Amino acid sequence: MVSIIFDGTSSNTPALTWTRHCIRSNGVSADRISPEALIGPLVIVDIRQRAGADSDSGVTLEDLKSWESHHGRIASGAIVAMNSGWDAHVRTAKFRNSDDDGHLHFPGFHIEAAEFLLTEREVVGIAVDSLSLDVGSTKDFPVHTRWLGSNRWGLECIANLAELPPQGATIIVGGPKIAGASGGPSRVFALV
Amino acid sequence: MVSIIFDGTSSNTPALTWTRHCIRSNGVSADRISPEALIGPLVIVDIRQRAGADSDSGVTLEDLKSWESHHGRIASGAIVAMNSGWDAHVRTAKFRNSDDDGHLHFPGFHIEAAEFLLTEREVVGIAVDSLSLDVGSTKDFPVHTRWLGSNRWGLECIANLAELPPQGATIIVGGPKIAGASGGPSRVFALV
Repeated sequence: MVSIIFDGTSSNTPALTWTRHCIRSNGVSADRISPEALIGPLVIVDIRQRAGADSDSGVTLEDLKSWESHHGRIASGAIVAMNSGWDAHVRTAKFRNSDDDGHLHFPGFHIEAAEFLLTEREVVGIAVDSLSLDVGSTKDFPVHTRWLGSNRWGLECIANLAELPPQGATIIVGGPKIAGASGGPSRVFALV
Repeated sequence: MVSIIFDGTSSNTPALTWTRHCIRSNGVSADRISPEALIGPLVIVDIRQRAGADSDSGVTLEDLKSWESHHGRIASGAIVAMNSGWDAHVRTAKFRNSDDDGHLHFPGFHIEAAEFLLTEREVVGIAVDSLSLDVGSTKDFPVHTRWLGSNRWGLECIANLAELPPQGATIIVGGPKIAGASGGPSRVFALV
């Protein structure tokens, strides 16, 4: 068993686990996430090539179908992570990638992809190597609203996904154990 | 692989990882603990019978030698946990077990045991199922001073050790990833 660790690139940009972030919710707080939901098979969807060419791209339903055509059905209890290569930009202006009008441009999950993982697969968490579960250009944060609103968790600002296989690793999310927390900095591990 | 989770018994008494707690130190903060030092083979020293009879008892050098005589030398990179059964008292007065003079009485590590793990074995962290790394009756917190002062970490208030074997489990400590933190609530997992 080899451990690879990707709990964010630095203490200044730690990985962040959220449950009630950006949404109005009476749902579960981060400390109440079931421990069993914080450990599971890690599915990595690699969109680096597309994200490198288009900062507004994100994980689509087609990406998930393509992943499944190569690796089989996404397992029950899985955690699905976007590898957009965006962790390379952390602590630079490119990480937020704000344009002259203050609009942000970085990859995230598109709502159709999140909806599929929520309703068609039994995925417990999603993770991104960028600043936000939603694409940076969003106006209304549909993935935050829908995914976190379903009492599932999301993980932002993870790093080093390129060191891991598209499937076969186990992710362990040391999310915040602080009563009532909406989320917070997290130690994240992967075992392969 | 089966996961057993023991990240404290409740959000009100979470497991706590410390590095600079109770001591004056310019040492490593909790967020700077090497990820590799937060995962390792878990050694469990069972002193439940003695602690049940004597609240001032704790893990001794003899306990460690006895463990090694049964299970072999404590591995490099191991994490050594005290199972005193004290997690059963959490959220009751017995957990602190204050006497009429305000002195506390609960199990912890004795300094000779900590010293052995520090100088004779390459142990990276110690853990207790009670409120403190030191025994409750301490006046001067020698284990806090010596162990944490050596830039190693300690974990307090863990639970459910009785579900794990004396050796063979892997512990993963989701300690706080908060810049400059002396310590804080933690998600703790074991894989067996």
